[in-house]
Amino acid sequence: MLDKKLKEQDILYITQRKSEIWRVEPSTTAKNCKNFIREIVDNLDLKPNPEKPVIALSLGDPTIYGNLKTSEETVQAVISVIEDGLCNGYAPSIGYEDARAAVAEYLSHDGVDVRSRDIILCSGCSSSLEHCITVLADGTKNHNILMPRPGFPIYRTLAETIGVTVRYYNLIPENNWEVDLDHLESQIDQNTTAIVLNNPSNPCGSNYSEEHLRNILEIAYRRRVPVIADEIYEQLTFPGNKFVSTASLNSHVPILICGGLAKRFLVPGWRIGWIVVHDETGAFEDVRKALICLSQRTIGGNTLVQGALPCILQNTPQSFHDELIDILHENAQLAHEEFGKIKGLTPYMPQGTMYMIIEIQMEKFVVFKDGLEFAQKMMEEESVFCLPGECFAVPGFMRIVLTVPKDLLYEACGRIAEFCNRHYGTM
Amino acid sequence: MLDKKLKEQDILYITQRKSEIWRVEPSTTAKNCKNFIREIVDNLDLKPNPEKPVIALSLGDPTIYGNLKTSEETVQAVISVIEDGLCNGYAPSIGYEDARAAVAEYLSHDGVDVRSRDIILCSGCSSSLEHCITVLADGTKNHNILMPRPGFPIYRTLAETIGVTVRYYNLIPENNWEVDLDHLESQIDQNTTAIVLNNPSNPCGSNYSEEHLRNILEIAYRRRVPVIADEIYEQLTFPGNKFVSTASLNSHVPILICGGLAKRFLVPGWRIGWIVVHDETGAFEDVRKALICLSQRTIGGNTLVQGALPCILQNTPQSFHDELIDILHENAQLAHEEFGKIKGLTPYMPQGTMYMIIEIQMEKFVVFKDGLEFAQKMMEEESVFCLPGECFAVPGFMRIVLTVPKDLLYEACGRIAEFCNRHYGTM
Repeated sequence: MLDKKLKEQDILYITQRKSEIWRVEPSTTAKNCKNFIREIVDNLDLKPNPEKPVIALSLGDPTIYGNLKTSEETVQAVISVIEDGLCNGYAPSIGYEDARAAVAEYLSHDGVDVRSRDIILCSGCSSSLEHCITVLADGTKNHNILMPRPGFPIYRTLAETIGVTVRYYNLIPENNWEVDLDHLESQIDQNTTAIVLNNPSNPCGSNYSEEHLRNILEIAYRRRVPVIADEIYEQLTFPGNKFVSTASLNSHVPILICGGLAKRFLVPGWRIGWIVVHDETGAFEDVRKALICLSQRTIGGNTLVQGALPCILQNTPQSFHDELIDILHENAQLAHEEFGKIKGLTPYMPQGTMYMIIEIQMEKFVVFKDGLEFAQKMMEEESVFCLPGECFAVPGFMRIVLTVPKDLLYEACGRIAEFCNRHYGTM
Repeated sequence: MLDKKLKEQDILYITQRKSEIWRVEPSTTAKNCKNFIREIVDNLDLKPNPEKPVIALSLGDPTIYGNLKTSEETVQAVISVIEDGLCNGYAPSIGYEDARAAVAEYLSHDGVDVRSRDIILCSGCSSSLEHCITVLADGTKNHNILMPRPGFPIYRTLAETIGVTVRYYNLIPENNWEVDLDHLESQIDQNTTAIVLNNPSNPCGSNYSEEHLRNILEIAYRRRVPVIADEIYEQLTFPGNKFVSTASLNSHVPILICGGLAKRFLVPGWRIGWIVVHDETGAFEDVRKALICLSQRTIGGNTLVQGALPCILQNTPQSFHDELIDILHENAQLAHEEFGKIKGLTPYMPQGTMYMIIEIQMEKFVVFKDGLEFAQKMMEEESVFCLPGECFAVPGFMRIVLTVPKDLLYEACGRIAEFCNRHYGTM
């Protein structure tokens, strides 16, 4: 009966389709969505040496070895919220007012005055970044965004998924991975809608000085390009390296700052991120409203953690943060010293974060055609895995994490030394 | 110094831009992102009668009145996970294997065999829907998706945000809001990439029979259009109305089923949703992979709740579910009886969910130009607010929630009766 109503063209169409096996094609967006680290790692033939236990120096999750735990204050804050039973319903899509006020207060230091109306809570810092890139960059308008090289590939994933082009600006290794300012400026054109800045940096471990940040923001101001500042590693800096937020510089540049609990509070799985709409000039008036709209699509982060945020941010003792820094710093010093002794490798001492980047003098390892093979063979022979620089758009480097227990890190350094000695200069 | 390097066109461009006030324009995507309920409600002039306390029959959050609480088993399951401290790190982007296996087991009933590989955990059911619409519908290809009228407007928000057109198919009020099958089929064309089905339905409260679901799926099969089945109200049906999942019908239609903890477990703020990739024929092979890629953009739901999911799903006693149904059913009966007595209103007895839809015979209330004014005046005079049908694309109706305490619901019915009596037939 229904068939009779079909138009002729529909019938033709159905017949054609029916004759085929039913296969549904994913959308362009879905096809454009790529995980670049996984693409690289999945293509490696990673077979560890069965005689040596695996040490993964690749995983950017500080909790997996069990040596780093969140604070008791954080745990108790969430338990208390669950027991109260008052935070099980929907929060406003941008987050509870109390939670946003607590984040604003937490971020108000060094002369920065963040208001709760500037805060949007998201389901993890990845969601924060997704909202920020989506609100500024337009796939239908040939827009491009700038991201650092080396840099964490999530920015590229988020941009390319929505049809936005990524352009890299170089960081200068010998200058503590500061931005090559000339190169940054040369990458800007009329279609550039955002500069992504990641400070402190994953994978570089760099922490920029106030002066350097001012130089970057001056370019952004002069060229009228807004900034997305990924500050997820805020405050995770080693002694002698003060973290400076882009919000503290009175740059007149509109900046969307992304952050969250994941790293400094050691709870990446809890998925609590935030956006700070830092807007001294009113340039972001429409963007602010649009971000609120975007937040309403899927609503923000888990309400149990939202409810606990004021206690987590206010009650976590400074000693907790200090101890984490001590552990990371000690590991960084150990790794820097040990890798410094290894022929053919050049470690870059990080100024913060949970990572160290190491240059592989590939010309000294002619037996390997590239850093991917280097990483693969190191796994095969020594059961140690590091992310190859290709994951961060810098071939010839590798990144290690500093969150593993010290003895394991030391063991890994020894194995890598043996591996390098074995293959150094071979032909 | 840097300025010297600028090309002439850049200098011209900068000069032009500098002369303007810096104002950043949001992307097309962000501008297309609209919350239709909020757009309507925010445009109402909602001033309650100061002499009567407000009763909001508008809020689809079952927890706000405090009369409906999640189970003690659910609470304890999460506390136990937090105390163990083992679920603070990143989960796989599609969710912990254990949690996905638990969801698969929970959904395996009535002959359905869901495997854990078919489950993708998301940050709330809204994210599940977003992924499903994004993976199937392509804004760059003039795609359209079909959604029910009346229907919850999130589908429209998610589709239009990515540039996909929405077409409505009608539901038939006098037939328990079943789908108008002829109309559904007439809306399908070559660019239709999904039929969104919402059963049990918000706002209708309908629960479709197996036969009716088969009729819908037969059209989907014949026309080779995949289905997105929003089953967030699964099992929330009243006595005599059995919930039938689209997964149980061996329809050979590839279906993405969305669900989550929000409604049946009374924890909407916890943001745990899921997608079931129901694919008997292999049609979704590429879609399945693409969904996994999409999940990697922002990673899934909070790990504390993910870790607790096996216990929540296995240990929540049937009595908890039964009590919730009893409360909702009693409220539905009360509301149906009371609204049935009110001149000018026609309530539709729901078969499940937390909602009842009520027709307003607008021709009997000639003093109001539309349902929006009706709702606004009811707030002004009686401090009772219901969502106007305009929010669900059906003017001339309104939706009430059945989750308020019984005495408040009764009080609201009385006030609405007075309001209707006062304005009935007036001119």
